[in-house]
Amino acid sequence: MCSTKPEVDVREALVDRYRRIRAATEAACAPLSDEDMMVQSMADASPTKWHLAHTSWFFEQFVLSDPGFKGYSEYHAAFNFLFNSYYEAVGPRYPRPQRSLLTRPTAAEVFRYRTHVDAAIGNGLSRLTDQELNQLRPLIELGLNHEQQHLELIFTDIKHAFAQNPLRPAYVQAPRQTSVASTPELRWREFDAGIRCIGHNHCGFAFDNEGPRHRVWLEPFALADRPVCVGDYLKFMADGGYARPELWLSDGWAACQARQWEAPLYWERNDGCWMQFTLHGMQPFCEASPVVHVSYYEADAFARWAGARLPTEAEWEVACGDSVVELDDDAFGPVSLHPRPLSANDADQPAWFGDVWNWTQSAYHPYPGYQAASGALGEYNGKFMCNQFVLRGGSCLTPRSHLRASYRNFFPPEARWQFTGLRLARSR
Amino acid sequence: MCSTKPEVDVREALVDRYRRIRAATEAACAPLSDEDMMVQSMADASPTKWHLAHTSWFFEQFVLSDPGFKGYSEYHAAFNFLFNSYYEAVGPRYPRPQRSLLTRPTAAEVFRYRTHVDAAIGNGLSRLTDQELNQLRPLIELGLNHEQQHLELIFTDIKHAFAQNPLRPAYVQAPRQTSVASTPELRWREFDAGIRCIGHNHCGFAFDNEGPRHRVWLEPFALADRPVCVGDYLKFMADGGYARPELWLSDGWAACQARQWEAPLYWERNDGCWMQFTLHGMQPFCEASPVVHVSYYEADAFARWAGARLPTEAEWEVACGDSVVELDDDAFGPVSLHPRPLSANDADQPAWFGDVWNWTQSAYHPYPGYQAASGALGEYNGKFMCNQFVLRGGSCLTPRSHLRASYRNFFPPEARWQFTGLRLARSR
Amino acid sequence: MCSTKPEVDVREALVDRYRRIRAATEAACAPLSDEDMMVQSMADASPTKWHLAHTSWFFEQFVLSDPGFKGYSEYHAAFNFLFNSYYEAVGPRYPRPQRSLLTRPTAAEVFRYRTHVDAAIGNGLSRLTDQELNQLRPLIELGLNHEQQHLELIFTDIKHAFAQNPLRPAYVQAPRQTSVASTPELRWREFDAGIRCIGHNHCGFAFDNEGPRHRVWLEPFALADRPVCVGDYLKFMADGGYARPELWLSDGWAACQARQWEAPLYWERNDGCWMQFTLHGMQPFCEASPVVHVSYYEADAFARWAGARLPTEAEWEVACGDSVVELDDDAFGPVSLHPRPLSANDADQPAWFGDVWNWTQSAYHPYPGYQAASGALGEYNGKFMCNQFVLRGGSCLTPRSHLRASYRNFFPPEARWQFTGLRLARSR
Amino acid sequence: MCSTKPEVDVREALVDRYRRIRAATEAACAPLSDEDMMVQSMADASPTKWHLAHTSWFFEQFVLSDPGFKGYSEYHAAFNFLFNSYYEAVGPRYPRPQRSLLTRPTAAEVFRYRTHVDAAIGNGLSRLTDQELNQLRPLIELGLNHEQQHLELIFTDIKHAFAQNPLRPAYVQAPRQTSVASTPELRWREFDAGIRCIGHNHCGFAFDNEGPRHRVWLEPFALADRPVCVGDYLKFMADGGYARPELWLSDGWAACQARQWEAPLYWERNDGCWMQFTLHGMQPFCEASPVVHVSYYEADAFARWAGARLPTEAEWEVACGDSVVELDDDAFGPVSLHPRPLSANDADQPAWFGDVWNWTQSAYHPYPGYQAASGALGEYNGKFMCNQFVLRGGSCLTPRSHLRASYRNFFPPEARWQFTGLRLARSR
Repeated sequence: MCSTKPEVDVREALVDRYRRIRAATEAACAPLSDEDMMVQSMADASPTKWHLAHTSWFFEQFVLSDPGFKGYSEYHAAFNFLFNSYYEAVGPRYPRPQRSLLTRPTAAEVFRYRTHVDAAIGNGLSRLTDQELNQLRPLIELGLNHEQQHLELIFTDIKHAFAQNPLRPAYVQAPRQTSVASTPELRWREFDAGIRCIGHNHCGFAFDNEGPRHRVWLEPFALADRPVCVGDYLKFMADGGYARPELWLSDGWAACQARQWEAPLYWERNDGCWMQFTLHGMQPFCEASPVVHVSYYEADAFARWAGARLPTEAEWEVACGDSVVELDDDAFGPVSLHPRPLSANDADQPAWFGDVWNWTQSAYHPYPGYQAASGALGEYNGKFMCNQFVLRGGSCLTPRSHLRASYRNFFPPEARWQFTGLRLARSR
Repeated sequence: MCSTKPEVDVREALVDRYRRIRAATEAACAPLSDEDMMVQSMADASPTKWHLAHTSWFFEQFVLSDPGFKGYSEYHAAFNFLFNSYYEAVGPRYPRPQRSLLTRPTAAEVFRYRTHVDAAIGNGLSRLTDQELNQLRPLIELGLNHEQQHLELIFTDIKHAFAQNPLRPAYVQAPRQTSVASTPELRWREFDAGIRCIGHNHCGFAFDNEGPRHRVWLEPFALADRPVCVGDYLKFMADGGYARPELWLSDGWAACQARQWEAPLYWERNDGCWMQFTLHGMQPFCEASPVVHVSYYEADAFARWAGARLPTEAEWEVACGDSVVELDDDAFGPVSLHPRPLSANDADQPAWFGDVWNWTQSAYHPYPGYQAASGALGEYNGKFMCNQFVLRGGSCLTPRSHLRASYRNFFPPEARWQFTGLRLARSR
Repeated sequence: MCSTKPEVDVREALVDRYRRIRAATEAACAPLSDEDMMVQSMADASPTKWHLAHTSWFFEQFVLSDPGFKGYSEYHAAFNFLFNSYYEAVGPRYPRPQRSLLTRPTAAEVFRYRTHVDAAIGNGLSRLTDQELNQLRPLIELGLNHEQQHLELIFTDIKHAFAQNPLRPAYVQAPRQTSVASTPELRWREFDAGIRCIGHNHCGFAFDNEGPRHRVWLEPFALADRPVCVGDYLKFMADGGYARPELWLSDGWAACQARQWEAPLYWERNDGCWMQFTLHGMQPFCEASPVVHVSYYEADAFARWAGARLPTEAEWEVACGDSVVELDDDAFGPVSLHPRPLSANDADQPAWFGDVWNWTQSAYHPYPGYQAASGALGEYNGKFMCNQFVLRGGSCLTPRSHLRASYRNFFPPEARWQFTGLRLARSR
Repeated sequence: MCSTKPEVDVREALVDRYRRIRAATEAACAPLSDEDMMVQSMADASPTKWHLAHTSWFFEQFVLSDPGFKGYSEYHAAFNFLFNSYYEAVGPRYPRPQRSLLTRPTAAEVFRYRTHVDAAIGNGLSRLTDQELNQLRPLIELGLNHEQQHLELIFTDIKHAFAQNPLRPAYVQAPRQTSVASTPELRWREFDAGIRCIGHNHCGFAFDNEGPRHRVWLEPFALADRPVCVGDYLKFMADGGYARPELWLSDGWAACQARQWEAPLYWERNDGCWMQFTLHGMQPFCEASPVVHVSYYEADAFARWAGARLPTEAEWEVACGDSVVELDDDAFGPVSLHPRPLSANDADQPAWFGDVWNWTQSAYHPYPGYQAASGALGEYNGKFMCNQFVLRGGSCLTPRSHLRASYRNFFPPEARWQFTGLRLARSR
């Protein structure tokens, strides 16, 4: 059985979901000035304003273009050029690294654009026949999940931008400090060899890259019951982790040297004492917090130093098993703006979701039998299946309602500005 | 005699001058949003907000630090780092290419910073003894001339940024169109050989690079009585000017090829018809307007094609002779936002100032006997005397009150985003 | 049973093998001048002279340093710095991209270095006790297989260098032209789902990355009975293969555009007619020859265009099954200097080895349970398990005696100068 | 009077001169292997083999193409493409940075090419009518002076290449060591203000950039009677010369920091003690030797530190006055391979020529009235008159017969691999 939830009115639920997800995006902008929403600190990141516009363009391009929405009038002829991210089938695009040059449209106009799109979607949803709605629902769901992905990017991108500013501004002030916990002991959970099934089971929304569901053979393995924490990572650093090439992949060592890494991103040494830049500004460390902002290379080197390895994505998914993400009323915003310290009793019920994205050792490749959709939406996931690694589990920034066991995030191995951490595995 | 103006109260005049020059800078921001004031489209350009802050920092650093202003309290400890442009003696600096990352301080705070500095200067000026005032006056004058240089940069930099936006926004709408004139005939003014004097004559303010006044030997030469106009330049282009290496310097040809130049900066061909981007948005051409936004390389190639050459700076200054810049009430803002068409009767009284900056063939080097001041202000001009060419005359953006015959502007030969044009010379 | 060959004297066989493999390397240099042996046309390639020295350094560093060879005197103190390729544990290295700057040692001296090492190895092999020999044999085998890898690189690297020379010199003149065959029909070989074993079976030499042998689950698949040929590839090109982003991975399309690919490497269009540069100089095409010098990106795009995909490395190895490489007297040199046309009857007994290296869709990752050796030799393979794809089968340049079913070659997806091609697979 | 030499047979003298200059080039290759002659260590330098071929191509292109040499058959059709350096008018060229990829033609064939050209020139010179000879003589003289320029480059370029080799090979072993002298005292020679004439006086060969001869006004100045020596320069270094931005031009300081300069090129600190790489291998310093291998930026910074400045080229030429270069039988080869120590009595007769090229503060610009020749040979000098500084005096590598007071060498301000030093000037 796919769901045990009582039948509710599908249309009403969709409208509610649309409203809450779009509102969550705009809520994220509340602490930001128009100037903040302009900034782009590297080609991988985008201005907040661009995220706001692009997610609206996505609905305009892929939903409002449907005959069911006939009568919809495009907001601005140039926006298809300005706010298309990477869809070759939709036409040429404004160059990604120059998005911060777009002082116009202003933030105010982008919010008007959002309102224009929201009104059109809202009117349409109340007017569509059931048949039309059923047909469009997957596209709307895709648009909403896409919006949720960009919500997380709004946070990661503004954090990167603020970190370049010597004033180290806080996105919001830190909540009252929790008492500092010590790192909980790490325990291993054991798994036997055998044929297992992974991939999405067709129950609820999933991106195309999560299927087809298929069998894999797994050798016996063990997985740590908690992510690697700051306290663990400090030991790696104290043991010369950033100065010992034998711990690193060749490309990783080259990156480490070329970029002069000596700690995770956003760590700063002031007067011999490590601090970290967070969305709450400069903060001290808590050893019991999951380490975050490490590249695949650092995660891999740490695991080797620890006599372990990174899990494969299949191992992660199998270990995760039937765990589901607990939802509550706040399921559409971030859980917190920085990973929270683990407490000793977390270990009884390992939390698979929502601390940090866990690097796996699996290259991001198609599952057996995967076929990208035809047309522009086939570009959503399929064309990136190269030179990236799969991450699992979701971070504290990922809305709870966006996560599931089969979810495959992916980034290149040198990326550090996402909320990326790791969990250890070993062969038995 | 240096001046025939009646004696007025020096202190009052200085206060008035300070107020008007600072106000002109802020007037230039009126059409810009906070977002516009954030943008930096290349390392050579700076955000408007940065110009606003840097010019205030200049007064804070070099004037308000004077004992005469004791009691002045620095606005913000970090601003010396953020808004120092290039003064090594003053300490380290925020990297120039990343100025657009400074979403904070906000524009609103930068304006408060200006008010803070203005108040301190204003109070000081009314309180200083005559002796203190006389001593500080050269520094205040330097600060004001510095502010005027940045006023011009605010215009050139925002123009470059707007040109990167596919919406091609106008800074302000175009004034009513003047009737299109035909290019006035070019006539040559002849000058004999002999020893001449150039450099500043100690009457009124001058930058240190304008002196010492000294003798030069000039061979006989002729100088055109008007700048090269769009109509002239179109003939060069039609004759293959951008495709004939024999017309170009070697480095110029390399730049032309590498950057795929085929017209001055901001020219765009739409449907086979040339248009130009201006501070009034996309505009048609007027053949009688001085050509603008050409590099030294293009100016040099044009001159060679025309069977002429660029003048030396000494030739330009000698030709300019006793011409003075006519001042009126608007002497503190730009004359216009784009060079205006010449009219046939301009030729009777050649206007040496205020159309376009004229490239000369003179490398920007120290005059004989030049000594840079000691300390940070010695870095104002002296350390740039390499790899640049002198430009003379001032553009339509340069405030009239800022110009004089001995003025030496300088840019590297590949620069095109300034309002740079040329006037032909030839040896006789 | 691992082998059915009669017992021969192991020591004698090893000496013979050493002699023939080292001689094959030197035979490859016969057509080259001292100048040819100096050239390095890109950082990925090395001068022939460097290959000659590095393979000798490998024996000196990892075999002759053994106590069994006591009394060996190092040839030159600087050679460890000059000819170490990438072994961090052995110390710093001369920068790879500058290898062509080493005019000294001269080629003549490098040959003397080889003689010095050969003599020491030869004397040692005749003098070692059986126990010492048994202990050293794996290292000597590794050195010999390493030498064979560099033999192939000598050919690929000099080909790349010669291709940069407008004279397009031939390494050797082409053999008599075989009659041009038409492309044999492609047939599919079907394989059922199930658990299969892959990896090396401990019989004979293997690199460490070929193990541990382990189980995998394979879904049903089919594999083409021949590689993609030039005739097939021309159809892809004629159908706009290089101009249709929907066929390409995102990184692949970016590479294709940035590098302006419009055909495989070494193809040149003269007067509208395609020719290819080969080790025999410029040659016409044979449609029945396997296509070669394509990147992973091109292989992947071709497969997508053909409605198929690349095989995984497990599929390739399973399909290859018990095939063994037939050896003859020429097993130590290249089979040919360019892939030979397939003939129609090849299809009856598909040749798995020796045409072109086949790109698989498998990222180059450790097999379950893989552990790199400790020390410098652990760097041989393990540290490269990132950002590369596995290739299978061996090319016409690979010595027959060097190949086997479990062999895993690897290159980054944009590499084209190796003899890389592809074979189609599909899911059933 | 231009010359006091007795009339000799012009044709015979020219043949002799041709023979000796060409022989000097080949003599420079004697210590080099074919491999050495292939190397190119940076884009600014060229392989010896390329110099050998290019200077022959120059005669083929600009002399043997003359109708007077009818019947001459081009040596190889591709050589015009391969060995044209920068003459746009002659057609496209092989890319400069890739000259080391040309293993073919071999060095042996390039020497055959030289013989082919020499034979054709030799036959022609004996066969031409007097009128033809007179007409061709300027071109032949240009070819010979061009060859002499490349002779110096052969030395500077191989030195740069050898310096990249950790073996630090010597071009030839050092001559017996002269006893180490102390730095002679520096005295100033004073010059009055006035109108002076500079430029070539039409007596003997000169490059076109040395004319027209013209008047200049010079303010009073003084010039040091000897170049800056190693002993002087060590004081600058000891006084923090490479760490004090106030001594440097802005671009110079940027270069100093980016390239991490802390001494002239080729200086190496071993165990705290400075040594220098020379064409005789690693050598200790002599404090009385002129400092060499400094950029314009370093020369300028040194001069500022010393309370002096660099001379203008006019000052240098005026100071040099009627000095002529003393010629002897060795006038066609280098004087020495490294600047020799000055001795105290040198000061009585300041040697203007042949120690090091002296940076002047003059940008390399056309003299008043300069016109480049039409056609390809107009590209020889004229198109480089931008972004370079003039150097005067000639180095120890420059053949004596190649120098004169009006000679203008030029390099960009960051160049260090030429034999460049400085002499101090000051205004009075």
